[in-house]
Amino acid sequence: MSDAARSAVDIEVRYAETDAMGIVHHSNYLVWFELARTNLCRQTGTEYAAIERGGHQLTVTRSELRYRRPARYGDAVVVTAWIDSLASRRVRFAYEVHCDDRLLTTGATEHVWIDREGRPCRIPSRLEPEFSRLAASN
Amino acid sequence: MSDAARSAVDIEVRYAETDAMGIVHHSNYLVWFELARTNLCRQTGTEYAAIERGGHQLTVTRSELRYRRPARYGDAVVVTAWIDSLASRRVRFAYEVHCDDRLLTTGATEHVWIDREGRPCRIPSRLEPEFSRLAASN
Amino acid sequence: MSDAARSAVDIEVRYAETDAMGIVHHSNYLVWFELARTNLCRQTGTEYAAIERGGHQLTVTRSELRYRRPARYGDAVVVTAWIDSLASRRVRFAYEVHCDDRLLTTGATEHVWIDREGRPCRIPSRLEPEFSRLAASN
Amino acid sequence: MSDAARSAVDIEVRYAETDAMGIVHHSNYLVWFELARTNLCRQTGTEYAAIERGGHQLTVTRSELRYRRPARYGDAVVVTAWIDSLASRRVRFAYEVHCDDRLLTTGATEHVWIDREGRPCRIPSRLEPEFSRLAASN
Repeated sequence: MSDAARSAVDIEVRYAETDAMGIVHHSNYLVWFELARTNLCRQTGTEYAAIERGGHQLTVTRSELRYRRPARYGDAVVVTAWIDSLASRRVRFAYEVHCDDRLLTTGATEHVWIDREGRPCRIPSRLEPEFSRLAASN
Repeated sequence: MSDAARSAVDIEVRYAETDAMGIVHHSNYLVWFELARTNLCRQTGTEYAAIERGGHQLTVTRSELRYRRPARYGDAVVVTAWIDSLASRRVRFAYEVHCDDRLLTTGATEHVWIDREGRPCRIPSRLEPEFSRLAASN
Repeated sequence: MSDAARSAVDIEVRYAETDAMGIVHHSNYLVWFELARTNLCRQTGTEYAAIERGGHQLTVTRSELRYRRPARYGDAVVVTAWIDSLASRRVRFAYEVHCDDRLLTTGATEHVWIDREGRPCRIPSRLEPEFSRLAASN
Repeated sequence: MSDAARSAVDIEVRYAETDAMGIVHHSNYLVWFELARTNLCRQTGTEYAAIERGGHQLTVTRSELRYRRPARYGDAVVVTAWIDSLASRRVRFAYEVHCDDRLLTTGATEHVWIDREGRPCRIPSRLEPEFSRLAASN
Protein backbone atom coordinates (compact mmCIF):
# COMPACT_ATOMS: atom_id res chain seq x y z
CA MET A 1 0.00 0.00 0.00
CA SER A 2 1.17 3.51 -0.77
CA ASP A 3 1.86 5.52 2.36
CA ALA A 4 -0.04 8.37 0.76
CA ALA A 5 -3.21 6.34 1.18
CA ARG A 6 -2.75 5.98 4.92
CA SER A 7 -3.40 8.40 7.71
CA ALA A 8 -1.41 8.03 10.91
CA VAL A 9 -2.24 10.05 14.00
CA ASP A 10 -0.30 10.21 17.25
CA ILE A 11 -2.41 9.81 20.38
CA GLU A 12 -1.34 10.31 23.97
CA VAL A 13 -3.27 7.95 26.22
CA ARG A 14 -5.48 9.93 28.60
CA TYR A 15 -5.88 8.97 32.25
CA ALA A 16 -9.65 9.13 31.82
CA GLU A 17 -9.38 6.48 29.07
CA THR A 18 -7.91 3.91 31.44
CA ASP A 19 -10.04 1.67 33.63
CA ALA A 20 -9.64 -0.23 36.89
CA MET A 21 -7.68 -2.97 35.08
CA GLY A 22 -5.02 -0.31 34.54
CA ILE A 23 -5.44 -0.40 30.76
CA VAL A 24 -7.31 1.62 28.15
CA HIS A 25 -10.99 0.72 28.19
CA HIS A 26 -11.91 -1.08 24.99
CA SER A 27 -14.60 1.44 24.01
CA ASN A 28 -12.00 4.17 23.45
CA TYR A 29 -10.51 2.56 20.36
CA LEU A 30 -13.63 3.53 18.40
CA VAL A 31 -12.97 7.14 19.41
CA TRP A 32 -9.35 6.85 18.31
CA PHE A 33 -10.41 5.26 15.01
CA GLU A 34 -12.58 8.30 14.43
CA LEU A 35 -9.63 10.64 14.91
CA ALA A 36 -7.65 8.69 12.31
CA ARG A 37 -10.64 8.64 9.95
CA THR A 38 -11.05 12.41 10.34
CA ASN A 39 -7.39 12.82 9.49
CA LEU A 40 -7.73 10.56 6.45
CA CYS A 41 -10.56 12.78 5.17
CA ARG A 42 -8.27 15.77 5.72
CA GLN A 43 -5.73 14.12 3.42
CA THR A 44 -8.32 14.17 0.64
CA GLY A 45 -8.29 17.95 0.95
CA THR A 46 -11.66 18.17 2.67
CA GLU A 47 -12.22 18.46 6.41
CA TYR A 48 -15.00 16.16 7.64
CA ALA A 49 -16.50 19.17 9.42
CA ALA A 50 -16.81 20.85 6.01
CA ILE A 51 -18.49 17.75 4.57
CA GLU A 52 -21.07 18.01 7.36
CA ARG A 53 -21.63 21.70 6.74
CA GLY A 54 -22.17 20.78 3.09
CA GLY A 55 -25.09 18.61 4.14
CA HIS A 56 -23.61 15.11 4.07
CA GLN A 57 -22.64 12.71 6.83
CA LEU A 58 -20.94 9.34 6.96
CA THR A 59 -23.01 7.41 9.46
CA VAL A 60 -21.52 4.26 10.93
CA THR A 61 -23.35 0.98 10.30
CA ARG A 62 -20.86 -1.60 11.58
CA SER A 63 -17.69 -1.81 13.58
CA GLU A 64 -15.41 -4.65 14.58
CA LEU A 65 -12.37 -4.66 16.78
CA ARG A 66 -9.72 -7.15 17.77
CA TYR A 67 -7.81 -6.35 20.94
CA ARG A 68 -4.38 -8.02 20.98
CA ARG A 69 -2.39 -6.11 23.59
CA PRO A 70 -3.48 -3.38 26.01
CA ALA A 71 -2.46 0.29 25.93
CA ARG A 72 -1.63 2.04 29.20
CA TYR A 73 -1.48 5.57 30.56
CA GLY A 74 1.78 7.14 29.45
CA ASP A 75 1.88 5.19 26.19
CA ALA A 76 2.20 7.10 22.94
CA VAL A 77 0.15 5.23 20.40
CA VAL A 78 -0.20 5.64 16.66
CA VAL A 79 -3.51 4.95 14.94
CA THR A 80 -3.39 4.28 11.22
CA ALA A 81 -6.48 4.36 8.98
CA TRP A 82 -7.08 3.59 5.35
CA ILE A 83 -9.99 2.90 3.03
CA ASP A 84 -10.50 -0.84 2.91
CA SER A 85 -13.25 -0.79 0.30
CA LEU A 86 -15.33 1.83 -1.46
CA ALA A 87 -18.68 1.64 -3.21
CA SER A 88 -20.98 4.39 -4.44
CA ARG A 89 -22.93 4.42 -1.20
CA ARG A 90 -20.64 2.70 1.29
CA VAL A 91 -17.13 3.05 2.68
CA ARG A 92 -15.24 0.60 4.82
CA PHE A 93 -12.25 1.93 6.76
CA ALA A 94 -9.64 -0.28 8.40
CA TYR A 95 -7.40 0.61 11.35
CA GLU A 96 -4.33 -0.45 13.25
CA VAL A 97 -3.16 0.82 16.63
CA HIS A 98 0.54 0.49 17.44
CA CYS A 99 2.66 1.37 20.45
CA ASP A 100 6.31 1.36 19.41
CA ASP A 101 6.60 -1.78 17.29
CA ARG A 102 3.80 -3.64 18.98
CA LEU A 103 0.44 -4.03 17.27
CA LEU A 104 -2.20 -3.43 19.94
CA THR A 105 -5.53 -3.38 18.15
CA THR A 106 -6.98 -3.79 14.68
CA GLY A 107 -10.44 -2.93 13.47
CA ALA A 108 -12.78 -1.73 10.80
CA THR A 109 -15.86 0.46 10.52
CA GLU A 110 -18.47 0.58 7.76
CA HIS A 111 -20.39 3.70 6.86
CA VAL A 112 -23.10 4.91 4.53
CA TRP A 113 -23.55 8.43 3.22
CA ILE A 114 -26.67 10.25 4.35
CA ASP A 115 -28.04 13.59 3.23
CA ARG A 116 -29.46 16.46 5.25
CA GLU A 117 -32.75 14.61 5.70
CA GLY A 118 -30.99 11.52 6.97
CA ARG A 119 -31.62 9.51 3.82
CA PRO A 120 -28.97 7.20 2.36
CA CYS A 121 -27.35 8.76 -0.69
CA ARG A 122 -24.37 8.46 -3.03
CA ILE A 123 -20.96 9.80 -2.13
CA PRO A 124 -20.92 13.57 -2.84
CA SER A 125 -19.56 14.00 -6.36
CA ARG A 126 -16.87 16.46 -5.30
CA LEU A 127 -15.43 13.89 -2.89
CA GLU A 128 -15.62 10.86 -5.17
CA PRO A 129 -12.31 11.33 -7.06
CA GLU A 130 -10.21 11.71 -3.92
CA PHE A 131 -11.88 8.85 -2.06
CA SER A 132 -11.40 6.65 -5.15
CA ARG A 133 -7.75 7.59 -5.32
CA LEU A 134 -7.25 6.64 -1.67
CA ALA A 135 -9.11 3.37 -2.11
CA ALA A 136 -7.14 2.47 -5.24
CA SER A 137 -3.81 3.00 -3.50
CA ASN A 138 -4.38 -0.05 -1.34
CA MET B 1 -35.94 20.93 52.61
CA SER B 2 -39.02 19.15 51.37
CA ASP B 3 -38.23 15.82 49.77
CA ALA B 4 -40.54 16.79 46.96
CA ALA B 5 -38.00 19.37 45.89
CA ARG B 6 -35.23 16.84 45.53
CA SER B 7 -34.51 14.36 42.81
CA ALA B 8 -32.58 11.21 43.66
CA VAL B 9 -31.34 8.84 40.98
CA ASP B 10 -29.70 5.46 41.46
CA ILE B 11 -26.56 4.93 39.43
CA GLU B 12 -24.60 1.73 38.97
CA VAL B 13 -20.92 2.52 38.55
CA ARG B 14 -19.76 1.48 35.07
CA TYR B 15 -16.41 -0.20 34.48
CA ALA B 16 -15.66 2.37 31.77
CA GLU B 17 -16.10 5.12 34.37
CA THR B 18 -13.23 3.82 36.50
CA ASP B 19 -9.61 4.73 35.86
CA ALA B 20 -6.20 3.21 36.55
CA MET B 21 -6.41 4.37 40.19
CA GLY B 22 -9.27 1.89 40.53
CA ILE B 23 -11.80 4.64 41.22
CA VAL B 24 -14.37 6.59 39.23
CA HIS B 25 -12.64 9.26 37.14
CA HIS B 26 -13.55 12.69 38.45
CA SER B 27 -15.00 13.87 35.12
CA ASN B 28 -17.89 11.42 35.38
CA TYR B 29 -19.58 13.20 38.27
CA LEU B 30 -20.65 15.97 35.88
CA VAL B 31 -22.36 13.31 33.77
CA TRP B 32 -24.09 11.91 36.86
CA PHE B 33 -25.14 15.39 37.94
CA GLU B 34 -26.79 15.77 34.55
CA LEU B 35 -28.81 12.59 35.05
CA ALA B 36 -30.07 13.90 38.39
CA ARG B 37 -30.83 17.31 36.85
CA THR B 38 -32.77 15.64 34.04
CA ASN B 39 -34.76 13.73 36.62
CA LEU B 40 -35.45 16.90 38.60
CA CYS B 41 -36.88 18.50 35.44
CA ARG B 42 -39.02 15.42 35.02
CA GLN B 43 -40.45 16.05 38.49
CA THR B 44 -41.70 19.43 37.30
CA GLY B 45 -43.84 17.54 34.81
CA THR B 46 -41.70 18.42 31.79
CA GLU B 47 -39.02 16.24 30.27
CA TYR B 48 -35.85 18.18 29.45
CA ALA B 49 -35.97 16.62 25.96
CA ALA B 50 -39.39 18.28 25.51
CA ILE B 51 -37.98 21.64 26.66
CA GLU B 52 -35.35 21.32 23.93
CA ARG B 53 -37.91 20.42 21.31
CA GLY B 54 -39.82 23.53 22.42
CA GLY B 55 -36.80 25.61 21.46
CA HIS B 56 -35.13 26.29 24.79
CA GLN B 57 -31.96 24.99 26.37
CA LEU B 58 -30.28 25.33 29.73
CA THR B 59 -26.65 25.85 28.86
CA VAL B 60 -24.07 25.37 31.60
CA THR B 61 -21.93 28.37 32.55
CA ARG B 62 -20.16 27.15 35.67
CA SER B 63 -19.55 23.98 37.61
CA GLU B 64 -17.78 23.17 40.83
CA LEU B 65 -17.12 19.85 42.50
CA ARG B 66 -15.66 18.69 45.75
CA TYR B 67 -14.45 15.08 45.82
CA ARG B 68 -14.42 13.68 49.36
CA ARG B 69 -14.33 9.91 48.91
CA PRO B 70 -13.97 7.82 45.75
CA ALA B 71 -16.61 5.60 44.15
CA ARG B 72 -15.61 2.21 42.80
CA TYR B 73 -16.86 -0.34 40.28
CA GLY B 74 -19.63 -2.34 41.89
CA ASP B 75 -20.79 0.57 44.05
CA ALA B 76 -24.42 1.61 43.87
CA VAL B 77 -24.47 5.36 44.23
CA VAL B 78 -27.32 7.82 44.65
CA VAL B 79 -27.12 11.28 43.14
CA THR B 80 -29.42 13.92 44.59
CA ALA B 81 -30.14 17.24 42.86
CA TRP B 82 -32.09 20.31 43.85
CA ILE B 83 -32.47 23.93 42.78
CA ASP B 84 -30.06 25.97 44.84
CA SER B 85 -31.13 29.34 43.48
CA LEU B 86 -33.40 30.62 40.74
CA ALA B 87 -33.53 33.91 38.87
CA SER B 88 -35.42 34.91 35.74
CA ARG B 89 -32.49 34.02 33.50
CA ARG B 90 -30.33 31.75 35.63
CA VAL B 91 -30.61 28.51 37.59
CA ARG B 92 -28.12 27.05 40.02
CA PHE B 93 -28.46 23.35 40.82
CA ALA B 94 -26.70 21.64 43.73
CA TYR B 95 -25.82 17.95 44.03
CA GLU B 96 -24.73 15.28 46.46
CA VAL B 97 -23.44 11.80 45.63
CA HIS B 98 -23.78 9.13 48.30
CA CYS B 99 -22.80 5.49 48.53
CA ASP B 100 -24.68 3.89 51.42
CA ASP B 101 -24.35 6.47 54.19
CA ARG B 102 -21.10 7.96 52.94
CA LEU B 103 -21.07 11.31 51.20
CA LEU B 104 -18.70 10.96 48.24
CA THR B 105 -19.01 14.16 46.26
CA THR B 106 -20.82 17.49 46.33
CA GLY B 107 -21.15 20.03 43.59
CA ALA B 108 -23.12 22.69 41.79
CA THR B 109 -23.74 23.81 38.23
CA GLU B 110 -25.00 27.16 36.96
CA HIS B 111 -27.01 27.55 33.80
CA VAL B 112 -28.61 30.20 31.64
CA TRP B 113 -31.60 29.77 29.37
CA ILE B 114 -30.97 30.18 25.65
CA ASP B 115 -33.43 30.28 22.79
CA ARG B 116 -33.34 28.56 19.42
CA GLU B 117 -30.87 31.15 18.10
CA GLY B 118 -28.55 30.59 21.05
CA ARG B 119 -29.37 33.93 22.69
CA PRO B 120 -29.81 34.24 26.46
CA CYS B 121 -33.47 34.51 27.39
CA ARG B 122 -35.89 34.30 30.31
CA ILE B 123 -37.12 31.01 31.70
CA PRO B 124 -39.96 29.78 29.45
CA SER B 125 -43.18 31.01 31.04
CA ARG B 126 -44.79 27.57 31.12
CA LEU B 127 -41.90 26.25 33.23
CA GLU B 128 -41.59 29.19 35.62
CA PRO B 129 -44.26 28.14 38.17
CA GLU B 130 -42.88 24.64 38.65
CA PHE B 131 -39.25 25.75 38.84
CA SER B 132 -40.25 28.41 41.39
CA ARG B 133 -42.09 25.83 43.44
CA LEU B 134 -39.00 23.58 43.50
CA ALA B 135 -36.72 26.49 44.39
CA ALA B 136 -39.03 27.68 47.16
CA SER B 137 -39.12 24.25 48.79
CA ASN B 138 -35.50 24.55 49.80
CA MET C 1 -34.07 -19.29 24.48
CA SER C 2 -35.12 -19.38 28.09
CA ASP C 3 -35.65 -15.92 29.54
CA ALA C 4 -33.69 -17.06 32.56
CA ALA C 5 -30.59 -17.11 30.40
CA ARG C 6 -30.96 -13.48 29.37
CA SER C 7 -30.14 -10.31 31.21
CA ALA C 8 -32.04 -7.15 30.34
CA VAL C 9 -31.03 -3.79 31.74
CA ASP C 10 -32.86 -0.48 31.37
CA ILE C 11 -30.68 2.43 30.33
CA GLU C 12 -31.62 6.08 30.20
CA VAL C 13 -29.72 7.80 27.40
CA ARG C 14 -27.35 10.41 28.86
CA TYR C 15 -26.86 13.80 27.23
CA ALA C 16 -23.11 13.27 27.34
CA GLU C 17 -23.59 10.11 25.26
CA THR C 18 -25.08 12.03 22.34
CA ASP C 19 -22.96 13.68 19.67
CA ALA C 20 -23.33 16.56 17.22
CA MET C 21 -25.45 14.36 14.92
CA GLY C 22 -28.03 14.40 17.73
CA ILE C 23 -27.72 10.66 18.31
CA VAL C 24 -25.86 8.39 20.71
CA HIS C 25 -22.20 8.14 19.69
CA HIS C 26 -21.45 4.63 18.48
CA SER C 27 -18.71 4.03 21.06
CA ASN C 28 -21.21 4.07 23.92
CA TYR C 29 -22.85 0.79 22.95
CA LEU C 30 -19.77 -1.07 24.16
CA VAL C 31 -20.26 0.59 27.54
CA TRP C 32 -23.92 -0.41 27.57
CA PHE C 33 -23.02 -3.97 26.58
CA GLU C 34 -20.75 -4.07 29.61
CA LEU C 35 -23.60 -3.07 31.92
CA ALA C 36 -25.73 -5.90 30.54
CA ARG C 37 -22.82 -8.34 30.83
CA THR C 38 -22.26 -7.30 34.44
CA ASN C 39 -25.93 -7.91 35.11
CA LEU C 40 -25.77 -11.32 33.44
CA CYS C 41 -22.90 -12.28 35.75
CA ARG C 42 -25.04 -11.12 38.66
CA GLN C 43 -27.71 -13.58 37.54
CA THR C 44 -25.22 -16.40 38.01
CA GLY C 45 -25.12 -15.42 41.66
CA THR C 46 -21.68 -13.81 41.48
CA GLU C 47 -20.98 -10.10 41.06
CA TYR C 48 -18.27 -9.42 38.50
CA ALA C 49 -16.60 -7.17 41.09
CA ALA C 50 -16.33 -10.23 43.36
CA ILE C 51 -14.81 -12.27 40.51
CA GLU C 52 -12.13 -9.57 40.19
CA ARG C 53 -11.47 -9.54 43.92
CA GLY C 54 -11.07 -13.32 43.66
CA GLY C 55 -8.21 -12.77 41.23
CA HIS C 56 -9.82 -13.42 37.85
CA GLN C 57 -10.81 -11.14 35.02
CA LEU C 58 -12.62 -11.53 31.73
CA THR C 59 -10.54 -9.51 29.32
CA VAL C 60 -12.10 -8.56 26.00
CA THR C 61 -10.41 -9.85 22.84
CA ARG C 62 -12.94 -8.96 20.15
CA SER C 63 -16.06 -6.92 19.66
CA GLU C 64 -18.41 -6.37 16.76
CA LEU C 65 -21.40 -4.11 16.45
CA ARG C 66 -24.10 -3.49 13.90
CA TYR C 67 -25.87 -0.14 14.16
CA ARG C 68 -29.35 -0.29 12.64
CA ARG C 69 -31.19 2.71 14.08
CA PRO C 70 -29.93 5.52 16.29
CA ALA C 71 -30.82 6.16 19.94
CA ARG C 72 -31.48 9.71 21.11
CA TYR C 73 -31.46 11.69 24.33
CA GLY C 74 -34.68 11.01 26.17
CA ASP C 75 -34.94 7.46 24.85
CA ALA C 76 -35.31 4.63 27.32
CA VAL C 77 -33.42 1.71 25.89
CA VAL C 78 -33.16 -1.91 26.97
CA VAL C 79 -29.94 -3.84 26.50
CA THR C 80 -30.18 -7.62 26.51
CA ALA C 81 -27.18 -9.90 26.92
CA TRP C 82 -26.71 -13.64 26.81
CA ILE C 83 -23.91 -16.17 26.47
CA ASP C 84 -23.53 -16.96 22.81
CA SER C 85 -20.86 -19.63 23.24
CA LEU C 86 -18.74 -20.96 26.06
CA ALA C 87 -15.45 -22.85 26.11
CA SER C 88 -13.10 -23.64 28.96
CA ARG C 89 -11.04 -20.52 28.34
CA ARG C 90 -13.32 -18.28 26.28
CA VAL C 91 -16.77 -16.72 26.46
CA ARG C 92 -18.70 -15.00 23.71
CA PHE C 93 -21.56 -12.75 24.75
CA ALA C 94 -24.20 -11.44 22.36
CA TYR C 95 -26.31 -8.30 22.77
CA GLU C 96 -29.37 -6.51 21.48
CA VAL C 97 -30.39 -2.92 22.14
CA HIS C 98 -34.06 -2.04 21.80
CA CYS C 99 -36.07 1.14 22.16
CA ASP C 100 -39.75 0.25 22.47
CA ASP C 101 -40.20 -2.39 19.79
CA ARG C 102 -37.43 -1.17 17.55
CA LEU C 103 -34.14 -3.04 17.38
CA LEU C 104 -31.39 -0.40 17.40
CA THR C 105 -28.12 -2.27 17.66
CA THR C 106 -26.79 -5.81 17.85
CA GLY C 107 -23.34 -6.97 18.80
CA ALA C 108 -21.04 -9.47 20.40
CA THR C 109 -17.89 -9.45 22.51
CA GLU C 110 -15.37 -12.23 23.05
CA HIS C 111 -13.37 -12.63 26.22
CA VAL C 112 -10.69 -14.80 27.76
CA TRP C 113 -10.15 -15.46 31.45
CA ILE C 114 -6.93 -14.15 32.93
CA ASP C 115 -5.47 -14.70 36.38
CA ARG C 116 -3.88 -12.26 38.80
CA GLU C 117 -0.64 -12.28 36.80
CA GLY C 118 -2.49 -11.49 33.57
CA ARG C 119 -2.01 -14.99 32.14
CA PRO C 120 -4.80 -16.74 30.22
CA CYS C 121 -6.45 -19.40 32.37
CA ARG C 122 -9.51 -21.62 32.59
CA ILE C 123 -12.86 -20.39 33.84
CA PRO C 124 -12.77 -20.38 37.67
CA SER C 125 -14.23 -23.72 38.78
CA ARG C 126 -16.78 -22.15 41.09
CA LEU C 127 -18.26 -20.19 38.16
CA GLU C 128 -18.25 -22.98 35.60
CA PRO C 129 -21.59 -24.63 36.51
CA GLU C 130 -23.58 -21.41 36.37
CA PHE C 131 -21.96 -20.17 33.16
CA SER C 132 -22.62 -23.57 31.58
CA ARG C 133 -26.22 -23.43 32.67
CA LEU C 134 -26.65 -20.00 31.08
CA ALA C 135 -24.92 -21.08 27.88
CA ALA C 136 -27.01 -24.25 27.63
CA SER C 137 -30.27 -22.33 27.93
CA ASN C 138 -29.75 -20.77 24.53
CA MET D 1 4.21 34.86 34.32
CA SER D 2 7.21 33.22 32.71
CA ASP D 3 6.23 31.07 29.74
CA ALA D 4 8.50 28.39 31.13
CA ALA D 5 6.01 27.91 33.94
CA ARG D 6 3.15 27.19 31.60
CA SER D 7 2.26 24.08 29.69
CA ALA D 8 0.23 24.44 26.51
CA VAL D 9 -1.18 21.41 24.71
CA ASP D 10 -2.93 21.34 21.34
CA ILE D 11 -6.15 19.35 21.30
CA GLU D 12 -8.24 18.40 18.29
CA VAL D 13 -11.90 18.26 19.27
CA ARG D 14 -13.20 14.70 18.92
CA TYR D 15 -16.62 13.95 17.48
CA ALA D 16 -17.37 11.77 20.51
CA GLU D 17 -16.76 14.81 22.73
CA THR D 18 -19.60 16.77 21.15
CA ASP D 19 -23.20 16.46 22.28
CA ALA D 20 -26.64 16.98 20.77
CA MET D 21 -26.29 20.77 21.25
CA GLY D 22 -23.50 20.53 18.65
CA ILE D 23 -20.85 21.63 21.14
CA VAL D 24 -18.28 19.93 23.34
CA HIS D 25 -19.97 18.42 26.40
CA HIS D 26 -18.88 20.30 29.52
CA SER D 27 -17.50 17.19 31.23
CA ASN D 28 -14.69 16.88 28.68
CA TYR D 29 -12.85 19.99 29.86
CA LEU D 30 -11.76 18.10 32.98
CA VAL D 31 -10.21 15.48 30.71
CA TRP D 32 -8.44 18.19 28.70
CA PHE D 33 -7.22 19.85 31.90
CA GLU D 34 -5.66 16.53 32.85
CA LEU D 35 -3.75 16.37 29.55
CA ALA D 36 -2.33 19.85 30.19
CA ARG D 37 -1.50 18.92 33.80
CA THR D 38 0.30 15.77 32.61
CA ASN D 39 2.28 17.90 30.20
CA LEU D 40 3.14 20.39 32.94
CA CYS D 41 4.53 17.52 35.05
CA ARG D 42 6.57 16.46 32.01
CA GLN D 43 8.11 19.95 31.97
CA THR D 44 9.42 19.32 35.48
CA GLY D 45 11.41 16.46 34.01
CA THR D 46 9.22 13.74 35.49
CA GLU D 47 6.42 11.96 33.70
CA TYR D 48 3.30 11.61 35.85
CA ALA D 49 3.25 7.90 34.95
CA ALA D 50 6.72 7.64 36.56
CA ILE D 51 5.48 9.43 39.68
CA GLU D 52 2.75 6.78 39.96
CA ARG D 53 5.21 3.93 39.48
CA GLY D 54 7.25 5.54 42.28
CA GLY D 55 4.29 5.08 44.61
CA HIS D 56 2.74 8.55 44.70
CA GLN D 57 -0.42 9.97 43.22
CA LEU D 58 -1.99 13.40 42.99
CA THR D 59 -5.62 12.77 43.79
CA VAL D 60 -8.12 15.46 42.89
CA THR D 61 -10.12 17.03 45.73
CA ARG D 62 -11.82 19.96 44.00
CA SER D 63 -12.50 21.29 40.56
CA GLU D 64 -14.20 24.40 39.24
CA LEU D 65 -14.94 25.43 35.69
CA ARG D 66 -16.32 28.49 33.99
CA TYR D 67 -17.68 27.95 30.49
CA ARG D 68 -17.62 31.16 28.44
CA ARG D 69 -17.87 30.05 24.84
CA PRO D 70 -18.41 26.59 23.36
CA ALA D 71 -15.92 24.49 21.41
CA ARG D 72 -17.08 22.58 18.35
CA TYR D 73 -16.00 19.61 16.26
CA GLY D 74 -13.26 20.72 13.91
CA ASP D 75 -11.92 23.31 16.34
CA ALA D 76 -8.26 23.19 17.29
CA VAL D 77 -8.08 24.24 20.91
CA VAL D 78 -5.12 24.99 23.14
CA VAL D 79 -5.24 24.14 26.84
CA THR D 80 -2.80 25.96 29.10
CA ALA D 81 -2.01 24.84 32.65
CA TRP D 82 0.09 26.29 35.43
CA ILE D 83 0.56 25.88 39.16
CA ASP D 84 -1.70 28.37 40.86
CA SER D 85 -0.54 27.62 44.41
CA LEU D 86 1.66 25.05 46.07
CA ALA D 87 1.87 23.83 49.66
CA SER D 88 3.70 20.86 51.16
CA ARG D 89 0.68 18.62 50.78
CA ARG D 90 -1.49 20.38 48.20
CA VAL D 91 -1.29 21.70 44.67
CA ARG D 92 -3.75 23.90 42.86
CA PHE D 93 -3.52 24.01 39.08
CA ALA D 94 -5.26 26.62 36.92
CA TYR D 95 -6.26 26.28 33.28
CA GLU D 96 -7.38 28.21 30.24
CA VAL D 97 -8.82 26.83 27.02
CA HIS D 98 -8.49 28.95 23.88
CA CYS D 99 -9.60 28.54 20.28
CA ASP D 100 -7.69 31.03 18.13
CA ASP D 101 -7.85 34.22 20.16
CA ARG D 102 -11.06 33.40 21.96
CA LEU D 103 -11.03 32.29 25.59
CA LEU D 104 -13.50 29.40 25.85
CA THR D 105 -13.14 28.03 29.36
CA THR D 106 -11.20 28.64 32.55
CA GLY D 107 -10.85 26.39 35.55
CA ALA D 108 -8.86 25.04 38.42
CA THR D 109 -8.31 21.73 40.15
CA GLU D 110 -6.97 21.03 43.63
CA HIS D 111 -5.04 17.91 44.53
CA VAL D 112 -3.40 16.23 47.49
CA TRP D 113 -0.50 13.82 47.38
CA ILE D 114 -1.23 10.26 48.49
CA ASP D 115 1.16 7.36 49.03
CA ARG D 116 0.88 3.74 47.98
CA GLU D 117 -1.52 3.03 50.84
CA GLY D 118 -3.77 5.91 49.83
CA ARG D 119 -2.79 8.09 52.78
CA PRO D 120 -2.21 11.83 52.37
CA CYS D 121 1.49 12.65 52.36
CA ARG D 122 3.98 15.41 51.53
CA ILE D 123 5.13 16.13 48.01
CA PRO D 124 7.86 13.60 47.12
CA SER D 125 11.17 15.25 47.94
CA ARG D 126 12.65 14.66 44.51
CA LEU D 127 9.76 16.59 42.91
CA GLU D 128 9.65 19.48 45.35
CA PRO D 129 12.35 21.71 43.77
CA GLU D 130 10.85 21.58 40.29
CA PHE D 131 7.28 22.11 41.46
CA SER D 132 8.46 25.06 43.57
CA ARG D 133 10.24 26.54 40.61
CA LEU D 134 7.09 26.30 38.49
CA ALA D 135 4.94 27.78 41.24
CA ALA D 136 7.37 30.65 41.84
CA SER D 137 7.39 31.62 38.18
CA ASN D 138 3.82 32.81 38.40
